[in-house]
Order: sequence, then C-alpha cells, then structure tokens
Amino acid sequence: MKKVVCFGEIMGRLSPQGFMEIVQADDYSLTFAGGEANVAVAVSNLGSKAKFVTKLPDNDLTRHALRVLRGYGIDVDDIVIGSGRFGLYFVEKGASQRPSKVLYDRAYSAVSLAEPSDFDWKAIFDGCDWFHFTGITPALSDNLAIICEQACRAAKEKGLTISCDLNYRKTLWDSRKAGRVMSRLMKYVDVCIANEEDAEKVFGIKAKDTDINSGKISLQGYKEVAEELQNRFEFQKVAITLRGSLSASDNTWSGMLYADHRMYTAKSYNIHLVDRVGGGDSFAGGLIYSLMNGYDHQKAIEFAVGLSCLKQTTEFDFSQATLKDVENLISGDGSGRVQR
Amino acid sequence: MKKVVCFGEIMGRLSPQGFMEIVQADDYSLTFAGGEANVAVAVSNLGSKAKFVTKLPDNDLTRHALRVLRGYGIDVDDIVIGSGRFGLYFVEKGASQRPSKVLYDRAYSAVSLAEPSDFDWKAIFDGCDWFHFTGITPALSDNLAIICEQACRAAKEKGLTISCDLNYRKTLWDSRKAGRVMSRLMKYVDVCIANEEDAEKVFGIKAKDTDINSGKISLQGYKEVAEELQNRFEFQKVAITLRGSLSASDNTWSGMLYADHRMYTAKSYNIHLVDRVGGGDSFAGGLIYSLMNGYDHQKAIEFAVGLSCLKQTTEFDFSQATLKDVENLISGDGSGRVQR
Amino acid sequence: MKKVVCFGEIMGRLSPQGFMEIVQADDYSLTFAGGEANVAVAVSNLGSKAKFVTKLPDNDLTRHALRVLRGYGIDVDDIVIGSGRFGLYFVEKGASQRPSKVLYDRAYSAVSLAEPSDFDWKAIFDGCDWFHFTGITPALSDNLAIICEQACRAAKEKGLTISCDLNYRKTLWDSRKAGRVMSRLMKYVDVCIANEEDAEKVFGIKAKDTDINSGKISLQGYKEVAEELQNRFEFQKVAITLRGSLSASDNTWSGMLYADHRMYTAKSYNIHLVDRVGGGDSFAGGLIYSLMNGYDHQKAIEFAVGLSCLKQTTEFDFSQATLKDVENLISGDGSGRVQR
Amino acid sequence: MKKVVCFGEIMGRLSPQGFMEIVQADDYSLTFAGGEANVAVAVSNLGSKAKFVTKLPDNDLTRHALRVLRGYGIDVDDIVIGSGRFGLYFVEKGASQRPSKVLYDRAYSAVSLAEPSDFDWKAIFDGCDWFHFTGITPALSDNLAIICEQACRAAKEKGLTISCDLNYRKTLWDSRKAGRVMSRLMKYVDVCIANEEDAEKVFGIKAKDTDINSGKISLQGYKEVAEELQNRFEFQKVAITLRGSLSASDNTWSGMLYADHRMYTAKSYNIHLVDRVGGGDSFAGGLIYSLMNGYDHQKAIEFAVGLSCLKQTTEFDFSQATLKDVENLISGDGSGRVQR
Amino acid sequence: MKKVVCFGEIMGRLSPQGFMEIVQADDYSLTFAGGEANVAVAVSNLGSKAKFVTKLPDNDLTRHALRVLRGYGIDVDDIVIGSGRFGLYFVEKGASQRPSKVLYDRAYSAVSLAEPSDFDWKAIFDGCDWFHFTGITPALSDNLAIICEQACRAAKEKGLTISCDLNYRKTLWDSRKAGRVMSRLMKYVDVCIANEEDAEKVFGIKAKDTDINSGKISLQGYKEVAEELQNRFEFQKVAITLRGSLSASDNTWSGMLYADHRMYTAKSYNIHLVDRVGGGDSFAGGLIYSLMNGYDHQKAIEFAVGLSCLKQTTEFDFSQATLKDVENLISGDGSGRVQR
Amino acid sequence: MKKVVCFGEIMGRLSPQGFMEIVQADDYSLTFAGGEANVAVAVSNLGSKAKFVTKLPDNDLTRHALRVLRGYGIDVDDIVIGSGRFGLYFVEKGASQRPSKVLYDRAYSAVSLAEPSDFDWKAIFDGCDWFHFTGITPALSDNLAIICEQACRAAKEKGLTISCDLNYRKTLWDSRKAGRVMSRLMKYVDVCIANEEDAEKVFGIKAKDTDINSGKISLQGYKEVAEELQNRFEFQKVAITLRGSLSASDNTWSGMLYADHRMYTAKSYNIHLVDRVGGGDSFAGGLIYSLMNGYDHQKAIEFAVGLSCLKQTTEFDFSQATLKDVENLISGDGSGRVQR
Repeated sequence: MKKVVCFGEIMGRLSPQGFMEIVQADDYSLTFAGGEANVAVAVSNLGSKAKFVTKLPDNDLTRHALRVLRGYGIDVDDIVIGSGRFGLYFVEKGASQRPSKVLYDRAYSAVSLAEPSDFDWKAIFDGCDWFHFTGITPALSDNLAIICEQACRAAKEKGLTISCDLNYRKTLWDSRKAGRVMSRLMKYVDVCIANEEDAEKVFGIKAKDTDINSGKISLQGYKEVAEELQNRFEFQKVAITLRGSLSASDNTWSGMLYADHRMYTAKSYNIHLVDRVGGGDSFAGGLIYSLMNGYDHQKAIEFAVGLSCLKQTTEFDFSQATLKDVENLISGDGSGRVQR
Repeated sequence: MKKVVCFGEIMGRLSPQGFMEIVQADDYSLTFAGGEANVAVAVSNLGSKAKFVTKLPDNDLTRHALRVLRGYGIDVDDIVIGSGRFGLYFVEKGASQRPSKVLYDRAYSAVSLAEPSDFDWKAIFDGCDWFHFTGITPALSDNLAIICEQACRAAKEKGLTISCDLNYRKTLWDSRKAGRVMSRLMKYVDVCIANEEDAEKVFGIKAKDTDINSGKISLQGYKEVAEELQNRFEFQKVAITLRGSLSASDNTWSGMLYADHRMYTAKSYNIHLVDRVGGGDSFAGGLIYSLMNGYDHQKAIEFAVGLSCLKQTTEFDFSQATLKDVENLISGDGSGRVQR
Repeated sequence: MKKVVCFGEIMGRLSPQGFMEIVQADDYSLTFAGGEANVAVAVSNLGSKAKFVTKLPDNDLTRHALRVLRGYGIDVDDIVIGSGRFGLYFVEKGASQRPSKVLYDRAYSAVSLAEPSDFDWKAIFDGCDWFHFTGITPALSDNLAIICEQACRAAKEKGLTISCDLNYRKTLWDSRKAGRVMSRLMKYVDVCIANEEDAEKVFGIKAKDTDINSGKISLQGYKEVAEELQNRFEFQKVAITLRGSLSASDNTWSGMLYADHRMYTAKSYNIHLVDRVGGGDSFAGGLIYSLMNGYDHQKAIEFAVGLSCLKQTTEFDFSQATLKDVENLISGDGSGRVQR
Repeated sequence: MKKVVCFGEIMGRLSPQGFMEIVQADDYSLTFAGGEANVAVAVSNLGSKAKFVTKLPDNDLTRHALRVLRGYGIDVDDIVIGSGRFGLYFVEKGASQRPSKVLYDRAYSAVSLAEPSDFDWKAIFDGCDWFHFTGITPALSDNLAIICEQACRAAKEKGLTISCDLNYRKTLWDSRKAGRVMSRLMKYVDVCIANEEDAEKVFGIKAKDTDINSGKISLQGYKEVAEELQNRFEFQKVAITLRGSLSASDNTWSGMLYADHRMYTAKSYNIHLVDRVGGGDSFAGGLIYSLMNGYDHQKAIEFAVGLSCLKQTTEFDFSQATLKDVENLISGDGSGRVQR
Repeated sequence: MKKVVCFGEIMGRLSPQGFMEIVQADDYSLTFAGGEANVAVAVSNLGSKAKFVTKLPDNDLTRHALRVLRGYGIDVDDIVIGSGRFGLYFVEKGASQRPSKVLYDRAYSAVSLAEPSDFDWKAIFDGCDWFHFTGITPALSDNLAIICEQACRAAKEKGLTISCDLNYRKTLWDSRKAGRVMSRLMKYVDVCIANEEDAEKVFGIKAKDTDINSGKISLQGYKEVAEELQNRFEFQKVAITLRGSLSASDNTWSGMLYADHRMYTAKSYNIHLVDRVGGGDSFAGGLIYSLMNGYDHQKAIEFAVGLSCLKQTTEFDFSQATLKDVENLISGDGSGRVQR
Repeated sequence: MKKVVCFGEIMGRLSPQGFMEIVQADDYSLTFAGGEANVAVAVSNLGSKAKFVTKLPDNDLTRHALRVLRGYGIDVDDIVIGSGRFGLYFVEKGASQRPSKVLYDRAYSAVSLAEPSDFDWKAIFDGCDWFHFTGITPALSDNLAIICEQACRAAKEKGLTISCDLNYRKTLWDSRKAGRVMSRLMKYVDVCIANEEDAEKVFGIKAKDTDINSGKISLQGYKEVAEELQNRFEFQKVAITLRGSLSASDNTWSGMLYADHRMYTAKSYNIHLVDRVGGGDSFAGGLIYSLMNGYDHQKAIEFAVGLSCLKQTTEFDFSQATLKDVENLISGDGSGRVQR
C-alpha cells in the first residue's frame, strides 16, 4: 500500500456552535486540524497509508490530538515531543453575506520553534512514497523553511514524489518573503497545488480575465497560470482549485489539472456549504491519493474535486469521505437521495 | 370522530446533532418513529383519532416510547408487550452533495418476532374507520406477512377502508419476494400509496420518461403507473409522491392522486430541507385524514402534499403540523413571514 | 461622540435550538431583546453611544439583562426598577415553507405598568442627541402612550432629533387605536421608519402595485407611501424596509429613504437567513447611526440596509456587526470569502 | 382502578443547566410542573389513574404541556382553555452552602384568572375516588379560593376522599390571609399534609423543640402539631414531611403519619440531592396512592417517604419512580447497586 | 514492551446526560465499551501494548468504534468483520438511593454469532504475552464458549499467561450453566479475577460473614473464597474487588490479591462516584499491567485498586489514567489538590 | 463609592463539560478569568467600584472579554490594546481522588509583553482607593515586575491602600526568583494575602505542625507565619486562606486575618465543591471590599471566607454572590433551604 508523509502543524480548532460568532459564543467544540494533517486524514480515509510529522508539546492537548490522529489510522510515530505551545485557532462560521472568520492563535507553537535536528528525514521517509507539505509550514519560522528544504532533499534522494500546496497566508508572511522562500523549495516539487489566488500572491502570476471577488473565473486564464508555473519551476503537474464565492452559504467548486501540456477539468459543483474550511486540503489529499494509486489525469482531477466537494458538506476540517463515497459522487449521484 | 388504526414497527431513532456523521458523532438525540407510527401521529395532530398497534419489549425504551405516543394522543392500548428487541435506527443528515444515511438496527425487534396470536384484530378494529399499513411491516418477517393479511381480512369484515404505502425497502427483502407477498395483500387494499420508485421495485411497473436520479419526472408516466396499478389490483385510489432530488439540501416535492380515472395533481414545492425522513409517511397521513374526513380529490392531494411539505421543514420523523398550518400553506401562504 | 436614547421594553427571548418547534422543544437559549434595545445595541456596536431606558422588576432576570446591556456598552443608569414582570417571548425559527413563530408573553411587564412619574426625561436626555422609540411602546399601555408623548416633548425642547419605527403589532392593539395614538405622537417625529405594511396598518396608506404575500414589491408605490406620510406628518425623512419573503429560509432585503423630495434606494440582498428577527430594528439602528454621524442620504440608506442584512445572518435579535463589517459589505464584498 | 383528581396550576419550569445561576445562564431546559400536577404524575406512574384539572391559554406552551401530561397517562379532558398567561418559573439549583432559588413568574396565569363557571365539578368527579389540592391554589386568587370550596363541596357530595397539602407560599399571601382562607377549606379535608413549617405559617401551630434552620427536629413536637391540627379541623389523618437541611447538596428526609391517635414514622434517608423541588408533592402522591389502594398506616408512610426520597434523586419536579422502584427501596435496598 | 490480547465484545454505550433516566432522556452520548475492551484501554493508557479481538458488522458504528480503539493505541488488526448487529447498551446513572440501570441490547451481535473458524488464535497471539477474557464472552453463545476454550489452548501452547474475570451476568445465563462452562475454561486460567459475588454466583463459593447489600464485608471470608477457588482450579493468583455500596453516589472500594498462600490487601478508598461502570474492568487492567511488568504482589494490588478508583472518578467505561496518575494516588496523594 | 484597581492578566478559560477530561473532551465552555480580574468582579458584584487594567490584543476574544467585564460593571477604560496573544487556560474538573488539572497556555500574552510605557498609573489611579495585584503578575515577565513596582509607587503617592495576594505559581518562576522579586514589591504592600503554602514557597516561612497534603492544619502555626510576614515586611494586615483538601469533591475552607497583633478567625465550612478555581481570589475580593468599606476585623474575615465559600459552589472563576447572599450565609443560614 502506498504511503504519504505530511509535514506541518496540527492545531486545536475551537468552533462556536452553529452560526454563533466568537464575540458572543460561550460554547466551542474542539477538533484538530492543519493543512497537512487534513491531507493525511483524507488519504488515510480513502485507504492508503499516511504518516504525519510535526512537533508538539508534552501536554493533554497533544495526547488528545494523538488519539484523534491514531484513530484515523495515521502513523504518528515520528511526531517529536518538545517545548512550545499547542497551536490553536478559532473558526467562526459565516452565512450568506457574513464571511467566515478564522482567528489564528498559532504563534510560538512547538513546531514553529522546531530545530533542524528534531527530524531524521531519512528514517522518516523509510517505506514511504510521497512527501507533501504546504506553504504554511515554511512560513511559520525560518528554521521551518530550512527543515522543509532538508526534508525535500531527503525525499528526492529516497525517490519520493513531492507535492506542495502553495497555501499563501498573509498573516504569516508577505508576498515578497513568500516568493523568495517558496521559489527555493519549488525546485524539489513535482506536483504543485494552488487555489485561485496563491500563484499571484506568492509568485506574481495572475490569471487573466478573472476577478475572484466577483466570482468571475476564466479557465483559460488559469491554464496560462499553470503553464507559467510549470515553465518557471519545471513541475510535472500543476493543480488549481477554482472556487466561486457566491456567498458564505453557497459556492461553486471545481478544479483543473495541468499535465503533459494539457488542461484536465472536472465537473463544477454548486455546494450549499456545511464547512468550507479544509476544502483545499482535501483536494490535495484526493489528488495525491489519485496520482499515488495510478489514476489517469482526468480521473484524478474528477476525484480530487469530488472528494473536496464532499468535505465541504461535512463539519470541521477533516474529510470523512470513503473511496466509495467519492466514487458514487463522481459517477453521477449528487442527488442526495437517502442511503438506506 | 374518525379513527385510523396503524400497524407496524416503532423504533428509536438516534440522530447525530446538526450535520455530524455517525462515524464522527458522539452526541445523539433519541426520538421515536416508524412508517405507520408517523402516519398515526400526523393524523392525530390534525385532529382525528389514531390507534397504533405493534409489539414491544418490556423495558424503559418501550416506556419512553409509550409516553411519547400517548403524548400525541395516540391510542396505545392494543400494543402488545413481549419478547424481542426495541428496534433502533441511526439517521445521519446529509447536505448538498452528501446524501443522508439511514443505518437500520431493527433485526429481532419484538414486532418482527410477533405471532399471529398476539393480535385480536376484531377487537382492535372496534369503533375504527380506516386501517393503514406499509410494505415495511410484511417485509419484517413471514409471520408479519400473515398477520397483515389477517388484519386486512378483519378490517374488510368490519367495513374499514384499507390503505397501504408500498414503501419498498431493499434491505428487508428483494423485489421478487416483495412482489409475491405484496400482491397477495393488495387485493384487500382500497388506497394504494407509493413513491416514485416503489411501483417499479415491487411490481415492476415503471414510469416512462422518468429518471429519478437525474430529477426528471414525467407526470404522464406516473399517470400510467397509477392506471396499471389500479388495473392490476382494483384499487379505488392510487396516490404517488413525486420528489425531485436536487441535492440533499433542496428537493422539489409534489404528488398526484389517481381516482375515478382522473389524475389530480398538487402544487409543487421547492423545499429547503430540515429533515426529509418521514416525508412520505406524513403524505400518507394527510391523504388518510383528507379522505377519511370527506375532502374531495383535489383538496385531498393538495392537503397531503402540503402537510408532507411542512413535515420536511421540521426536525425528526413526526409531523408537527396542525390543521391550520396546512390550511395556511395550501391556501397560498408559503412566504414564511413571521407569525406573531 | 453622538448619543441616542432608546425607550421601550426589553424582554427575555427563549429560543428552541436549531429548527425545533415550541411544541416539541425542551432546550431553550435565553437572550434579551426588544425593538428599541436592539437599536441601542446596533448603534453602540458601531461606535456611537446609546442609552436604554425602560422599567424592570427587581429580580435575577433583570440583573442578567443589565449585565448583557452593560456588556454592549449601553448606558443603563436611567433604567427604573419597580414592580411588574420581566417580559418574555418565545421565537421558533421557521424554515422553507414553515413560518417562524413568535409567542409573546409580555403582558404585565414592569414597563407596561410604568407611571409617567417613573421617568425624568429632561435629566435622561442630558448630553444626548437623538431619541428613538417604536410603535410597540405606546401600544403596551395607555400610560406608555402618555409617557412617550412626554418624552417626545422633552426631547424636542432639548433639541434632540426624534425617530420612530412604526412597528405595528396586531396582538397589542388594532389599527384604529394605533392610528389614533400614533398620529398624536407623529407630530414630534423627524424621522419615520416603517416596513412594507406598517403605513397601511397604522395610517391606512397602502402601496400601489404591491402584494407582500406574493413577494411583489413596487418601489414607485412605496415612494408614494413616503410622500403621503411626509405630507401628513411633516417628517424630515421617511425610511421604509423592503422585504421579499420568498420563504422562511430565503428573503430579499432592501430599503429606501425618502428625503428632500427624493427617493434614495439601496442595493437589494438575497439573504439565506440565520435569524430574521430584529432585522428591522438594526435597519433603524444603522439609519440613526448614519444620520447622527452626518452620512449623506445615499450612504445612509446603503449603510442601514447593509447592517440589517448582516444582522439577519447572525443568531438572535442583536446586531453583532462593527463599522468595518458594514463598510466591507456595502463597498462590495458580499462574497463571504473567509477572513483570516 | 382508583382515580385521583388534582386541581391547581401547571407551569413551565425553566432550569439552567447543571449548577449555573439565572444571572449567568444562557441555556435552559423547559419542563412542566406544579404542586398538584406533580401529585397526578406520581400517582399515574405508580399505576393508579389521575386526572389533572386547570385552566390554560390557547398557545403552543399549552399544547406542549398537554403532550407531556398525556404522555404520563394523565386524563387532561377537563382542562379548560381560556385567556391568561402560561405560568412560568425559573429554578436555579443550589449546591453546598448556596441555596436553590425559585423565581416565580406565575402572575396573571390563566388559572389564576379562572371563574367559578369554568369548572363543572360534578362532571369532573364522575368515576373518581380522591380529590387533592394544595394551599397554593386558593392563594392564587380569591376566585380560586371560592372554586376550591366548590370543588370540595362537590367532592364530598360524590363521596370522594379529600386531601390538601398546606404548601404555604409567602410570595402569594401572608399568614393571616392564608389562615383565614385555609381554615374555611379544612373542614372538607380528610387527609392533611404539611411540611415542617406549614402548620406554623398557616395556622400558628408550632412544633416544640424544633429549629428547622439548624436542622434540629423533634418527632414528639410534630406529633403534638398533628394532634392539634386534628383537634382543630377533625382530619382523619395528618401527614408531615421532615426535612433536615444539612446543605443544598445533602438533606435528611423522613415523614410521619398521624392517624387513629397514633404516630407512624418512616425510615429516615440521607439524600445526596439531584433535585429537591417536588419532593413534598411526590410524598403527597405516594401517600394518596397508598391510602387509595388500602395500604396500612405504617406501609403508607414508608411508601410515601420512599417515593419522595427517590424523586429527589431525579431531575425536575416529576417523580419517575414505578411501584417496583419504591418497593425495592423501602424493602431495604438503598445501596444503589447497578441494576442490569 | 509487553502485550496483552483481550477477547470479547465491544458495544456502543448510550448514556443520558447527567442524571436523566432513560424513560425521560432525549439526548445521549455514544461511547464504546465492553469488559475486555475496557481492559485493553486501561493497559494501553498505562504504556503497555494491547490487542483487542472481536467480530463486528460492516457499518459506520464499527468504523467509529475502530477509530476510537485505534485512538487509544489498541491493535485492532485481528478484529473480524462479518454479519450480525453492533451490540448496544444504555446506562442510566443513579444517584443516592436511586440505583444506576444498565439496559443491554446486545443480542445477535456479530461476536455472539461468531464461528470458531473466524479466529486464527496462533497468529493472533504472535508476539503477545498475556491473554485476558471475562465470563461475559463464553456466556454470549455456545460457539463463544468453544472459541474461548480454543483461544485458551492456543494461548497456553504459545506460553501466554491467561487471566479471566468471572464477571457473572445473570441476564446472559444462569448460575448452573455458568458454573459448567466456566469450570471447563478455568483449568487454563492462571489469574482469576472476581468481584464480591461472582464466586458465589458462578461456583457456589460464598464469603462468610459478608452481606453485600448491607455493605458488610469480611476480608477473612474473602480470603477463604480465594483459597477455595485456588484449591478447586489451581490458579496461580486470585484477585477480588471489594465494593461497599453505601449508595449510588458513594462507595468504598478496595481489593485483595491471594497468591503464594498469602492475602495482599490494598488501601480502601471512599469514592464519590462519577461513573462506576467499568470499575472492575480497570481493576483487571491494572492487575494485568502490574503482573505483566513484574510488580510485586503488594504493589500490584495497590496499583490495581488505585487505577480502578481513579476510573470511577471519570466519565464512561474507559480508564483515562496514566501511569503517573496512578503512582501519584497510591503514593498517597488523594487530596485532589489542583494540578497546575 | 469606594473603587479598587486590579492589575493583571485576564485569560480565556476553556472548561470541558461536567467531569470530562481534556484528553477526551470535545466540548468546552469559554469564560474569562484571572487572579486580579476575579477580584474586580467579586468587588463589583458586592456593590463597590472596580477598574481592571491589563493589555490585550486587538481581536474578537478581547472584544468578547471586554463585553463580559463591562457586563459586570467593571471599568475597562484603561485596558491597553496592543500586540501579543490572548492568554488561555484549560481547566479540567477533578472528582473524589482525581485532582483538578489546570493547563496554562498564557505564554506570550499581550500583558506579558507589556512595556512600562503602556500604563500611566497616575491617571489610572485617579479617584480610586485601593490597588490590588497578585504574585502572578510580576511572575509573567521582568517588565511586569518593573511595572508592578511603578504602579505601587504611584498608588502610594496617590494614597491608595495596596494589597497583594502572593499566589505563587511554580510554572511561572521558581521560589528563588519569586522571593527576590516579591520582596522588593512587599515594601509597598499594606495587606498581604496568602494561601496555606504561599508564604513558604515565596519567602520560606513555613507553618509548624501543618501538612497540607494530609489536610492537617495548625491555626497557631499560621499565626506565626503571619507574625513573621508582618515582621519582615511591615504589613498592616496579613490574611491567610485555610483549605483542607479532603478530596477533589470535598474541602474544608476557612481563613484568618492577622492585624493589630491579633488573629481573627472565621467559621470553617465543609464545601461540596462545584468549582474551586477562583476561591482564593474571591477571598481577596471579599477582604478588600470589607476593609475598603470599614468592616471591623472579625466581620471582614467572616465576610471574606463566606464569600469565597459561596464562590466555590458556583461554576467558573467569577463570584456571582451579592452582598445579601454573603450576609445570609455568615449570619448563619448555610442550610441551603430553597429561596422562593
């Protein structure tokens, strides 16, 4: 069975119930999530193996999180325990014209304080096939940018495929630093994943005829973005998610995969959102699963888009979808008829 | 006041909160429901009388369920207490492209283990006007198929009108057995109720020009289905619910009544679903109430569709609608303006 | 900083969780609200000052409510403590074709039993700029109609601007009494606020070419209503909210301001409702804030409509929106993209 | 089967969760209760019949309450629907040194506004054996004092046994009025029920050597109270509950029955309280059940004390105990070993 | 690291919130538990390895349970998926004089329908040190009695230590059948674990001078029980838990270990119970951990009693205690001072 | 009215529901608390004025916390908004032998990063009478130790009384550093407050004949501690809380005040705990209120102990007790009888 290694931060997510706002909510549910942990869970739920690597403090939040990850079948044996906080974030669910809000409280997390010596990448990659990280991880600290590069180098030596989701976060760094650091890492990357605006924010590559705030999206424009990314960094494949933000309650959702100088596009879904956070991560998870298990390009993009569509109909960051759930959806049954 | 007798199973329904899935949910609400119990509740809430007949074990779940049924004004005096389980089922609410899921845990329930000697139908039907059962009951055990026939015979002798909702459940039996058993029971039935696919699954009668998975529905096709059903089993009336499954969040909903060689159709509603489970049962309840109280055909189908539309905007299986609620809706006020 | 004085009733609002109906719900959340209190909160959240004046009994519900009001920064120093009940109301959230229901239990509340001698309006208005009340307050008791007039007279003497939201409540009085009492009060009012049907119910002024039950709304008709109101009572400005009730889940929402013999209209929003109760009050709050702070007419109506649109995407009666939230929306970002 | 008629008020009880106080609690559970309704439920749960008579308004709280009462098997057919409020009260659960708090909001309830013509007592008592009311009912209004006397007279004529629980409430009347009104009613009463302080508060009959605030209780003193009550009003039996208030978390609980010039005392229980509200009512229920079903005096007092002990280990006012639960406890098993 | 294999049933446990009773409760939490699964979790939380073996159906309850078990670090690789139900049970928490209630709904569970061919015990025991089962497992079906014997034989061949907790359940079998079946299995058992009444119920060996209902317990009597058990079945060790049931809220708790012809007794704890269910199982878990890791007899019994004391201060069946938690308690700190 | 200024950190407190542990809990309630904020709330609830001074970040948690503080009537006008985190802590409620656990996540909070220039103490103290801080504040950072000293100096100049609760936290600093820093601050302090172990941990002054782990407490020993403290730092008064930790569920609670070379002791309470966190802070609040309002020494210590006893019967850190609640308790009514 194929195995992916995901490296990044896992945080406690505190979510007010229903549509309550942080400023008024007294009751929160605690779940765990993070860009790369979300990918590990999505892949594991589909039936492949996943290892999650991070650094966490020695306390009961960590013990709780490890229980959760182990529960999803994730290999947590290479998680390092050390000093620092357990990162947290608050997610307030938006509705209609009121946007969702994410309030990060991740500063000084254990992984952001990690040292290169904390991770023995050669051992970590033993028996693994794929390495995935996102642009969030190198943004957390200078050390993490170094560690990501070390991981990439080790992964390449071991023959793993490497994917990176650009995942630009303006609260962690600015476009200039992001561009500089990410460019250095991109040379190791085989599969580059991005959303509608990452390429522009990180590398200044803007889609033509597209205005994400108005919901107007040009496929041709994104094809050119993918080509430009491939030209610049020699990626094997570039995948881009395409979200049309109609409102905080309703989105359109699709994606494209650029490979072999062709653009493969998937069906577009009109999603009445349950929880959109983690949608891009499950797209990455679905794409990695597809490619790792030899799906062709068309199937891979349909699968990744279908999985991430389902994720957005589910509470919290983690995909709960099984292989069968995704197959049902992409083979045409999005009618939502009751399964008895 | 008119009185209907409903015979079948009542189960505990365990529902995760909000849009949580069974695989992740720790908190469940327990309500009670069942195809025929739902009808009894719908009718009782409208103001007619209803008796519910079943067999239940001697434990606190039964005591809880009896409290609930009595609370709705249902006559529970002929419920038999004996051995067997209290049937349960889990309902996971779907959203958008993610379908709702029903996980049945009804095997070995007390009623499925019932013996013909458990029920004295003549006494049960005393003072009653209508007998209703669904295709679920005879599917639960061979004994129940026999008991249903005994009930039908006694009902006929006592002059009750008999209705049956075909309600095909593929997890309980296959089409072949369903067809054989149901055909035997149909000769007693005056009013046959079905959804878009029951007639095909049970009797092999397929609507033309209709594909329920794509949401395409042909009224003319269903008229032919009703004619064919009436021809085969000499029903007085045939009623069919028409659901357009746009997604797990939004459905269209209507229905038709075939009687006196005419098709009566109702307004179609675009429902933003709260809980669609029990929609068909409340349609049956509304139809029985209408016909039992002498509504004409057109009013009857409008009433049944309106009631079952309202049910799907309410949590759990039981209709909460009063006569006035339904009258308001079918007389044109579906605007949802606040009632102060 | 500008300061508004709001006079009226604050009640405990008991809301079943989710879409549960009162007839079935065992769990309720208690919040506090009232037509004028909602305005005070909306204005205070935007950054201006607000004082709320009422009469409340000496018990723990009052202590709880005072905590909540003080928490929003409201000046509660002129609230009178005396005999009577703490008014309550139950709100059942509707969905799709099922309307929301409000069950009032406000009879014999302390404020409805208030005496003119309870309030020293000259002192109350010291340092304040605006006085706001709604048609609910004089409807609660004959004494309150007198008290409202005393307040208006004192406000006029002190040079405050006076606004009144007609807010007709048929459970409190009939159109005839409403018309008689309100006409007397209108002569003090500078800014008159109404919804689609208030002018007709209170003063018999009906919009042409409009049928609120069918969702059909004619702007021209409402312009004439505003003109007629202005002609009759010499208002400086008339503002009317325009709700299109598509269903209990989805509404269109807009508003118009008539001033200087011109009609200013705002963008219309398609709202997927979280909680529509209090929408009109936050419109009044937004309008008062805008005018009190010197916004021009066009900006004022856009601001009031935007604020009240956001309110309806939030749980419970109180607006949670900040100045920045409203500015973001009316400057064009209603896409609901996640704010990180 | 024997049948008791209980007459009084049923209210909605709003209880904060756990040990939250009203001044801080946002979440409440709604149950229904009242001194006489609690008796009806206790008796019905034990297996005898009970009818509850009151007046309620025409709204969804009434519909909810009727569902609950019917669910417990209570005969609600003689409940009158008319004008007035649905009475409410808030119960804050105390702990250790912090006392429980009851905040009544029952003024202007429908029953308190009832007229003598609302009730046809002869018809109400048809087929019934026992009539029970408490001192709360005549305290609610002068009309209710008259109605209670009419009910007593009718009950006597029909040959019913009459019991009254003195249940003095200082928020409803003062001792002087209570003494005057209750003395008039006592002449109809066969079985008088009181707690440690009722006899003193209502009739000025004080137990010697007892200080209820210090927890010191003298059985001999209460025997003299019972004798004095019997001498004054010619009761057949007098029953007194004996609560030792160690703290809001722990009480001792017992009771005595004075009959045939003898005092019968029951076992005393050390109760770690779950909810003490309704304890006295379930004592009355247990006593009525015992005497109505011919238990001897010793068994009757043991049964009444045992039942009311169990009630105080249960959430909310209503006893949930079955005949078997009480028998188990009074036959010696208070060990709390798990019942599998 | 040492590894224990536990074989038995895991069920879904449905628990009403707080002190609500099944007959009144609408909200339940779902956790997972079972006599042997509880042992596996207790041991795994302490730091040794545990494998849990059972048979479960192919549905989402199983997927949820596997997540939970994996989360606790349990090896679930030998769990068989097949036909049958997912066993359930309801636990109602008692208080004071009201006993806790367990309502089992485990009939026809997948494991109770298991066949001997479902389990390859030699493979299962590979790399393991200890085998544990309870008297519940062979009571579930005749096949399971056979399977337990096969497991014992394989365990013996592989050199594992075998422990059995007698765990008599009168709802599963009677004493006669229990005695016959268990006697056959006892010859393989090295460590026999029992509570105060198991030895009497299963083998007719009664402790002298002890009356468990009155809370009177004679250590000498239990020493003789242990001696008699050892004489009859040649156990290496016999451990007995000693619970003094003061009430459903407060218990005394201790235990003894009989080995090398000596009785080792532990400190007795006065426990204010949070959840007593699973107390005996965590005792077994603590004992197995102790003996498997070479603790001496005195330390072993102190450890097992301390761990199971802590379990009863924790919600639900599973022990949450770490090695350090138990060490702190048995080294004397039961003062409950806050750990910061 | 007298006014106290409290300076320190306010944090978000995340508490699992009921007795759930952090390692297993998914649902948390968010409240706000901190040693000095707790004092401000206690004093404000009693009827005197309180200002709370701290530094907080510019986010929705701060806005929520400010609402809560303002709701309690606290003056928040001098709270500084700046960079840093909003400090958090998790509180797991213990039971019986299982201790409560506090998991702090306060590192890098805004106040811990505060600069001396953030606070203008002369202006802050305008119109105030008392300054209170605890040993936690100077432990948070070296800057805060300096700021505390600046505040003390300004308070002295302005003539305020200064109190300090030693509140030693071993996770923030060690005894050596604490002793050095606190000694420097003590010279400004008029009223020193401590618990059983603070004097020893911070200044090495140990009570004779006392072993807090065994619950053994010697009043004479604490008198000597107070004398020694007074001798060393010339305090006007020394107050010490005396907790007997019987278990995590039950504590004894008292306190003493040493002043004028005499020891004043209060009644000792046996508390069945609801939430012990914040007990010491409410003691300080009660003492400050008492002394600020001129109570004599005996009354002051009775009042402080009574208030803090009540706090421990209430959920979360904040005292909810009113003046009347405390007066009732210390005047003898701890019986917990229901207040109607």
